[in-house]
Amino acid sequence: MRRTRRAQARLRQRLARFRRKLRAATRADAKAPPPVSPLAPRGFPLLAPVAGVELATAAAGVRYAGRDDVMLVRLAPGTAVAGVFTRSATRSAAVIDCQAKIGGAADAGAAILVNSGNANAFTGARGDRAVTEIARAVGDRLALPAERVFTASTGVIGEPLEPGRITAGLDALEAGLATDGFEQAARAIMTTDTFAKGAGGAIDIDGAPVRIAGIAKGSGMIAPDMATMLVYIFTDATIAQPALQEMLTRLNARSFNCITVDSDTSTSDTLMLAATGRSIAPPIAPGTEACARFETALEGVMRELAHQVVRDGEGATKFVEVQVTGAADDADARRVAGAVANSPLVKTAIAGEDPNWGRIVMAVGKSGARAERDRLAIRLGDIRVAEAGWVAPDYREADGAAYMRRAELVIGVDLGLGTGAATMWTCDLTHGYIDINADYRS
Amino acid sequence: MRRTRRAQARLRQRLARFRRKLRAATRADAKAPPPVSPLAPRGFPLLAPVAGVELATAAAGVRYAGRDDVMLVRLAPGTAVAGVFTRSATRSAAVIDCQAKIGGAADAGAAILVNSGNANAFTGARGDRAVTEIARAVGDRLALPAERVFTASTGVIGEPLEPGRITAGLDALEAGLATDGFEQAARAIMTTDTFAKGAGGAIDIDGAPVRIAGIAKGSGMIAPDMATMLVYIFTDATIAQPALQEMLTRLNARSFNCITVDSDTSTSDTLMLAATGRSIAPPIAPGTEACARFETALEGVMRELAHQVVRDGEGATKFVEVQVTGAADDADARRVAGAVANSPLVKTAIAGEDPNWGRIVMAVGKSGARAERDRLAIRLGDIRVAEAGWVAPDYREADGAAYMRRAELVIGVDLGLGTGAATMWTCDLTHGYIDINADYRS
Repeated sequence: MRRTRRAQARLRQRLARFRRKLRAATRADAKAPPPVSPLAPRGFPLLAPVAGVELATAAAGVRYAGRDDVMLVRLAPGTAVAGVFTRSATRSAAVIDCQAKIGGAADAGAAILVNSGNANAFTGARGDRAVTEIARAVGDRLALPAERVFTASTGVIGEPLEPGRITAGLDALEAGLATDGFEQAARAIMTTDTFAKGAGGAIDIDGAPVRIAGIAKGSGMIAPDMATMLVYIFTDATIAQPALQEMLTRLNARSFNCITVDSDTSTSDTLMLAATGRSIAPPIAPGTEACARFETALEGVMRELAHQVVRDGEGATKFVEVQVTGAADDADARRVAGAVANSPLVKTAIAGEDPNWGRIVMAVGKSGARAERDRLAIRLGDIRVAEAGWVAPDYREADGAAYMRRAELVIGVDLGLGTGAATMWTCDLTHGYIDINADYRS
Repeated sequence: MRRTRRAQARLRQRLARFRRKLRAATRADAKAPPPVSPLAPRGFPLLAPVAGVELATAAAGVRYAGRDDVMLVRLAPGTAVAGVFTRSATRSAAVIDCQAKIGGAADAGAAILVNSGNANAFTGARGDRAVTEIARAVGDRLALPAERVFTASTGVIGEPLEPGRITAGLDALEAGLATDGFEQAARAIMTTDTFAKGAGGAIDIDGAPVRIAGIAKGSGMIAPDMATMLVYIFTDATIAQPALQEMLTRLNARSFNCITVDSDTSTSDTLMLAATGRSIAPPIAPGTEACARFETALEGVMRELAHQVVRDGEGATKFVEVQVTGAADDADARRVAGAVANSPLVKTAIAGEDPNWGRIVMAVGKSGARAERDRLAIRLGDIRVAEAGWVAPDYREADGAAYMRRAELVIGVDLGLGTGAATMWTCDLTHGYIDINADYRS
């Protein structure tokens, strides 16, 4: 009977929630955009202009109506461009094109053109031609060789991208180029995102400022072990391309490659870092103290953007950090972190605010990493939950349940075997995820 | 406006659904079991007794009230027992105990005792002792050495299992042993299952019948690459233990190890096959024609039980067969089949009856298998959807949409590279899965 009464209470709560939703949907102004993720930051950060970077956006009507869906970035001559891309075997034409162009001569400057609404992935030779056409048109317009025009497309897979829709707007885009357009740019590349993502940083070298500003989009089809989503980061630092590329690849491994929303990996994932060299600060050489400080600032920007993608995970109501320590090695730690962060049963327990640590034990067990029951310890935040092969002696379920009601959670797993460690970030799996992905094509 | 109206219609439908649920929950008889999966077979099959196999069930109150939750099986002297178990690093005490016992001398006969409601996994040394105590008590009661008593526990992880609850009922269990209890046994080992799972088969050898009968439980925490769920199969055939074990391991690789519900792997997975040798048919030796026919019948039983587990997948409304062909090798084919069958985005598209083949392309791409865009072909049933790097010329979205409304679907992926092939079975990912796993502890 107690269970029945609880079930009734739950259903009544859900009924009330749906009545509210129905009322909201029936309102005259129901065309309002979807609600913003409850985990979103308070607003888009103030990002100072980065010398040598100009941005513009436009509404090309690729798929969405009434919003900008194309972003153009012009980068000053001498800009070094580094990139990391999805390793998907079915990656998009734009990704393949960018991979061929990264590392080229920087003298002429460069440009980035991104559209949302259509991924131009699995669109055959026609898709390849669309990329060539867009890159050539952008190059003609900005007096750049096509080899210095990087494109990306994000949205539905398998539908043809009409390049004319984008090239027709290039005049207006060029005319609109300005140094302060980061927020509009972040907004133009959104698909199922509920908020625009940005982060910035700065350091001083010999009294001269060096700035970093980045934008990102991503919400679903987010999994690590490949570069994920679309991310564009700009700095006025002077850094040689090989050093820039090495730094980006290394920092990517501990930022964007450590997040997961749904274990699915996009065909379009692109992370680019452009260094314009327009700061008056001296060049940054690998191994120097200035380089170390620059890297720290850059990693901060990358991690913040990565976290924002998780905070906007489709249907997410919880932001979860999975900390694994004591593994036999770092690779094992990463296996365990990934198994926990991707487990549908762990993620639904988090959605239900259930401190169901048995499911964490299950995920550790299936990960393939070395583990021993009697050495494994699990904690929720600072609460020791399980250790020495069983529940911790001072653990009280009520404490775990209270902790799970927080919006931001830490799950700690110590394997008690070695010094291997890894951290990953994920979100919960909710009815919202099913709503978004079962009812709409994305 | 159109989107608004559609959203309203959807919300009204859901409101109606929740009203129905609320009414159902408010009824006096609200203790009724959850509705049966829409994919369930019409009923439990008629399973003829298997000579040398007796079953009994009892309500020990391990966790559930008002239903049987313990199953006891007595196997005649001479029974050969084979088993395949989860490879989870956090597998339960009962699994570790069974692994040590498989292959032992068969003279004395054997027994199997299974409880539902508690997995006795990650319960420390106390859990080990519970297994020892139960095995010893069953052995004492049935005059068997404890080394011939195989146990299993399924249910919540991390909670202590009180062996006294089970051993207290052994008198009644022994008294109830009968040859016709397959359906009750299948029912006693259920957890979140919505129907009891059984399958049978038979062959003749020189005019003498050999029977096979199997039962299974499993609904969530179902992933391949390890023995999955709890499955007990009985035959009166005479087969030496090593041959029986080899056969079971081989057939498991293409039945239970080819299904997935949620990519999560249980700590308790157990598959056992007992051959009592009580048929009057001559012994079955490996490599003979009779052995081949027996294997075919056994594989039929195993595949049917595996399919039933998928049909009872938590929240499932669609049964999906993923057929991969043309891979560079079988391992690559399996990677692709697993990536498609486990992808949350593919599974939510199926739930939404959306022929979103772009998500299948995505899953192929992330699988890690060799793939080439222009050789990849995708079909839904007999409908060719994508080929030669893009949508098939004669594909019409309306055909795909109509196909997706079926309850049983085939997704075909041909990689066009070699002769590697694999088939896997999965279900869709629905609100029902979230309901079951976010709202209840299982």
